[in-house]
Amino acid sequence: MKKEYLFSPGPTPVPPEALSVMGAPIFHHRTQRYRDLFKEVIEGLQYVLQTKNDIMFFTSSGTGAMEASVSNIISPGDRVITVNGGKFGERWGQICRAYGAEVDEIMLEWGTAVEPSEIEKRLDGVKAVYITLSETSTGALTDVKAVAEIVGKTDAVLAVDTISGLVADEIKTDEWGVDIAVGGSQKGLMIPPGLGFASVSEKAWKLVEESTSPKYYFSFAKAKKSLAKYDNPFTPAISLVRALRETLAMIRDVGIEPLFAMYKRFSDAIRAAALALNLEMFAQNPANCVTALRVPEGIDGQEIVKTLRNDMGVTFAGGQEALKGKVIRIATMGYQTQFDIVTAISALEAGLKKMGHKFNPGDGVKAAQEILLG
Amino acid sequence: MKKEYLFSPGPTPVPPEALSVMGAPIFHHRTQRYRDLFKEVIEGLQYVLQTKNDIMFFTSSGTGAMEASVSNIISPGDRVITVNGGKFGERWGQICRAYGAEVDEIMLEWGTAVEPSEIEKRLDGVKAVYITLSETSTGALTDVKAVAEIVGKTDAVLAVDTISGLVADEIKTDEWGVDIAVGGSQKGLMIPPGLGFASVSEKAWKLVEESTSPKYYFSFAKAKKSLAKYDNPFTPAISLVRALRETLAMIRDVGIEPLFAMYKRFSDAIRAAALALNLEMFAQNPANCVTALRVPEGIDGQEIVKTLRNDMGVTFAGGQEALKGKVIRIATMGYQTQFDIVTAISALEAGLKKMGHKFNPGDGVKAAQEILLG
Repeated sequence: MKKEYLFSPGPTPVPPEALSVMGAPIFHHRTQRYRDLFKEVIEGLQYVLQTKNDIMFFTSSGTGAMEASVSNIISPGDRVITVNGGKFGERWGQICRAYGAEVDEIMLEWGTAVEPSEIEKRLDGVKAVYITLSETSTGALTDVKAVAEIVGKTDAVLAVDTISGLVADEIKTDEWGVDIAVGGSQKGLMIPPGLGFASVSEKAWKLVEESTSPKYYFSFAKAKKSLAKYDNPFTPAISLVRALRETLAMIRDVGIEPLFAMYKRFSDAIRAAALALNLEMFAQNPANCVTALRVPEGIDGQEIVKTLRNDMGVTFAGGQEALKGKVIRIATMGYQTQFDIVTAISALEAGLKKMGHKFNPGDGVKAAQEILLG
Repeated sequence: MKKEYLFSPGPTPVPPEALSVMGAPIFHHRTQRYRDLFKEVIEGLQYVLQTKNDIMFFTSSGTGAMEASVSNIISPGDRVITVNGGKFGERWGQICRAYGAEVDEIMLEWGTAVEPSEIEKRLDGVKAVYITLSETSTGALTDVKAVAEIVGKTDAVLAVDTISGLVADEIKTDEWGVDIAVGGSQKGLMIPPGLGFASVSEKAWKLVEESTSPKYYFSFAKAKKSLAKYDNPFTPAISLVRALRETLAMIRDVGIEPLFAMYKRFSDAIRAAALALNLEMFAQNPANCVTALRVPEGIDGQEIVKTLRNDMGVTFAGGQEALKGKVIRIATMGYQTQFDIVTAISALEAGLKKMGHKFNPGDGVKAAQEILLG
C-alpha cells in the first residue's frame, strides 16, 4: 500500500502512456516499422532541442553521449575548456582528460555558475568548450546563450550538457549557436534511463572529420550514416525508443514554451516555499529543473532523504560527493502538475518536522500555493 | 488482427513476465531496492556464463561490451588475433583497429569456423585473442573449448563474443578458461535490447591495469568499483535490469543444461526440416542458437523474408552484407517451445511455396516433428 512519489532529478516518473508501450511485445528494428518510429523520435528531439542539426542517437546513459561529444571532436593534445561547478561539469573534465586533451578547467565554488567573460579570456587556441546547462548536483544554471555568443566568434566548438535541463530550462540550440547539445532520456523527456543523444552542428562536423581519438560504438560518423535511413548502427533499445515517441508527442502537444513557463512556476513555488520554511537556496543562479536546498546546520540531509523515502514513499535526492548530507534536491521536471509540487512541499515539511527544524507547519505549502495559483 | 511471430536472432520475443515489469512505474537506482535487484541479476549472469568472475555491466548493445573488452585490455600497438568468419568476427577486427591494435585477422570463408591450430601458430607476442562463440551472420559455431585450451597456455587473454549463443550454445567460462565472455540482453536472455556485459578473469585484469587506451563510459575499473556495492557508475537502464531479473529466474528455474539440450533439439529439428525441403545448411559446424539456410539458386532470399513478414507476420532474418539475399536465418533461442519450431517450419514452407521452390508441402513439418517428438 505504500504509494511512491518520485522527485529525484532523474529518473523521473514515466507517464502510463509510455509505460504501456514498454510492456508491449517487442518487434524487429531492421524494418520500416522501426524506421517510421525512429524518424518521429529524431524529429521530436530536434523540436525539444530547437535545432535542425542531425541528432546522434545512442543506447547508453547521457554520459555515453557526453563521451561521444569528446571522443568524436578532440584529438590527443587538443586544448579544451571545461567548467567544474559541480559533479557533472567535473565529468566533462574527466572525460576530456581520459581522451588526452589538455584541459583548462575553470574551478568554481559549487553552486555558482561560470562568468562568460572567464571563458572569453581563455579561448586562444582552444578546440572545444564543454559546459553544463543546469548543473544537476547544485541546481545552478549556466548562461548558455552568453557563452555561445562568445565562443561563436572563434573557431572553438561549444558543447552543452543539457541532460537535466532539457524541456525545463530554455535551450535554443540553433538560435544561440550551440554546436553540440547533449541529452538523456530519464529527465524532462519522462522515459526510463537508457538513451543518450547529441545534436551536432556543421561547425562541429569539421572537427569530427579531423579527430583521431579512438571510437566505435559512440562514433558520430557511424550514427550519422545510419541516420540517413533512420536506422541505428547497433541494435537500439527498441522499447525505450517506443516510449520516447509517446512522451515527445505529449511534449509537442503542450509546446516547449508553455512547458518552460510551467517548470519555472513550479521551481519558483519550491523556492518560495523553502524561504517560508527558513531554508536557503544552494545555487546562486538557480535552474528551473531542479532546486538544491541547503540543509540547516545540525540536520543531516541524508537522514531526511532516507526518512522520506523509507517511511513516506517520497524520493528526493540528497547531495553528491562534497555536498553529501548538505543539500536536498527537488526536481521540477517531467511528468508533474502543480498538485505534485504541493505534495513535494508537504513532504518536505514532514521531513523537516521529524528532524526538529524550526518552522510553522503549512507555511511552505501556503507559499507554494500562492505562486501556483497566482 | 495480424499475429506476429519473431524468429530473428535478436531481438527475440520477451515473455509476458518480463514485459509486465517493463511497464511498471520506475524507481530510483541509488537505493537498496535497486542494489538487491542488481545483485540478483549479476548472480544470474554468472550462472548462465558459468563463472565466478566479476561481471562488468553496461547500458548499451552487446557491441558496447565488445568495445569495452578491447579498450580496457589493449594499448595502441598491441598485437591481437581476430577471426573474420562473418559480420561479428569482422567487428572484433574493426574495433581492435579503431583502438590502434596491430590486428592479425584470420580470414575464413564465411560459414566456416576457425581451426584452433590456426590460432596456435600465431600466438607469439599476442596480447589478446578475440573470437565468436556462434557467428550470428552465418550460424557457424567456434570450438571455444579447444581455443581456450591453446590460448590458456600462453600469456594471451581470450575474449569470446557469446552474444547470440548464450543460453543456447554451451559456454563454460571458468572450466574452459575464457578470460572475457561478452553477452547482450536481446537474444537467449529474452529481454529487449539495451544491456551488454562482460565477465573478466584475473588474468585479464592484469591487462586492464596496464591498458593505456582511452575509455570512460565503458571503463572496467569504474564498473568494478561500483559493482562492489552492486551499483553502476552511470544511470543504468533500470526497466531492462528489472526485466532481466525475471528472465534469469526463469532460466535458473529450468537449468542451463536442460536448456542447451532443448535448443539443440530445436535446431536439429530445423535442420532436418530444411533437408526434407531440399535446402542446404550454410554453416559447416552449425550453432544451436541460429540456423542459416542457403537460399536455392534463382530465389531471392530477401523476398522470402519480406513476404513472410509483411503477409504472414513471421519474422526470419535475411543475410547480412555479402550474404544479402543468399541465406535465411531462423533463430532457436529465447522464449520458444517445440510448437514454435513447427510454426517456423510451417512458415518456411509457405514462403518457399510462394517463391516457386520445389518440395512436397508438409515434408518439413513432418521431419521437424519426428525430431521434436523423438
